[in-house]
Amino acid sequence: MLPKMLRFHFTTLKASPFLPISKAIRYPTRLRSQMASFSSSSSSTLLFRQLFEKESSTYTYLLADASHPQKPALLIDPVDRTVDRDLSLIEQLGLKLVYAMNTHVHADHVTGTGLIKSKVPDVKSVISKASGATADLYVEPGDKVYFGNLFLEIRATPGHTKGCVTYVTGDTPGQPRMAFTGDTLLIRGCGRTDFQGGSSEQLYESVHSQIFTLPKNTLIFPAHDYKGFTVSTVGEEMQYNPRLTKDVETFKNIMANLNLSYPKMIDVAVPANMVCGIQSKTS
Amino acid sequence: MLPKMLRFHFTTLKASPFLPISKAIRYPTRLRSQMASFSSSSSSTLLFRQLFEKESSTYTYLLADASHPQKPALLIDPVDRTVDRDLSLIEQLGLKLVYAMNTHVHADHVTGTGLIKSKVPDVKSVISKASGATADLYVEPGDKVYFGNLFLEIRATPGHTKGCVTYVTGDTPGQPRMAFTGDTLLIRGCGRTDFQGGSSEQLYESVHSQIFTLPKNTLIFPAHDYKGFTVSTVGEEMQYNPRLTKDVETFKNIMANLNLSYPKMIDVAVPANMVCGIQSKTS
Repeated sequence: MLPKMLRFHFTTLKASPFLPISKAIRYPTRLRSQMASFSSSSSSTLLFRQLFEKESSTYTYLLADASHPQKPALLIDPVDRTVDRDLSLIEQLGLKLVYAMNTHVHADHVTGTGLIKSKVPDVKSVISKASGATADLYVEPGDKVYFGNLFLEIRATPGHTKGCVTYVTGDTPGQPRMAFTGDTLLIRGCGRTDFQGGSSEQLYESVHSQIFTLPKNTLIFPAHDYKGFTVSTVGEEMQYNPRLTKDVETFKNIMANLNLSYPKMIDVAVPANMVCGIQSKTS
Repeated sequence: MLPKMLRFHFTTLKASPFLPISKAIRYPTRLRSQMASFSSSSSSTLLFRQLFEKESSTYTYLLADASHPQKPALLIDPVDRTVDRDLSLIEQLGLKLVYAMNTHVHADHVTGTGLIKSKVPDVKSVISKASGATADLYVEPGDKVYFGNLFLEIRATPGHTKGCVTYVTGDTPGQPRMAFTGDTLLIRGCGRTDFQGGSSEQLYESVHSQIFTLPKNTLIFPAHDYKGFTVSTVGEEMQYNPRLTKDVETFKNIMANLNLSYPKMIDVAVPANMVCGIQSKTS
């Protein structure tokens, strides 16, 4: 099946910041996991920023191809409250925001995607087809979202919600990959599985088949952290995650007995996030 | 003047994790700014973690030489409330904590240094001599704090307090340096200058002479952020810091008219932090 984005008549020229979501790797790149832009004449340079929204403890991630002439950028899991901060930073860094992506339909905050699109109309919203949510572009397992010469690969990791995906950077020798795991895999934890089509068995399978199969030095960047951690690795979580190191039956039992309270934002956030947070503008 | 640490009879053997604070660079290293440990047979590998304490919005930084057999590590600006988290992480990563360092005597939280020392007695506390605080080791401008084959260089950056220092990683071709600026330079801001021997003129001079003279791609890691930023660069702050891009007279005027409230933690935190937070254990 062709990626749905083709219906939006994106240009596929190599020099465009609107590079296509594609099932094929376009060119090899040398991707550097780092936090600031610096030039690299012979390779693509990833500009990377981790941003935090304190009320919902949400991490938003900014990625850009800093060596591309137009510095195309994307945001993963933007929050409505921090859209102005994010857009201001993007402007100061001289980036061109191309995609506002979500790992899933969040239940604990309203996505900033709709607000971003109202402020920067060229930006395309991206979410998984399996989420059932409305967006400009839908991704499916194996798709690649290009920004400049860099890309994120889509891995289906349902379990927290039925439509959860993990975005993974390309494989570059000598550099760790980065996995944006949403609520599927948290640092020493995982998302709850009792709402939104959640399934503890499915989450377990997703983590073990789609995330723990990545190289052990792959950096784990979750959608949330509540203890002040900013990053982990596949190797660390395989060794120390208190839930996902257990066998599947023990894991299911843990998840069935968390006794968590009803998510306080869910009745506001989920309907809004099913339409990219647009409802938040009019409420 | 000889660094004071020599009085503590640290071994100076190359293989020891207790490498000395020294005014001389010991060996060239290839330092990689990254967030997770991975092996590098021909060079020293920096393991780096940024950790957040939500109540005081404090960043604690963990650095280690991951390629050294003993994986010597240090913490910059640990917070008392998050000591158990930090020590647990250090244990899981297989590191040997050598130093618990402060950029200055904090007024907004109690340092974790004293608590760390009570739990891991071999750890040495480090602070600037100019701070007037009690510690195991005192650093002065130009000193270097070694951990394995890596080091932090000390730059005096008074102004927020009289004893503020900035810790800067070594210079490695192709990799940005990292500057741990405490409250001297914050992301798009700076620390207040109206307590603890503070001086707006001195802070301005410190930033311009000691931080803005670093390469523009140097990563700025402050002691706090209140808006969810995790990192900036020298180049960004030189261009976009709303205070420090001004001339010194305008800056002094800005700082004199902030109309900030009395620091709510200062009467508890400063006396405790003058003795590495030890008072916090008995209070």
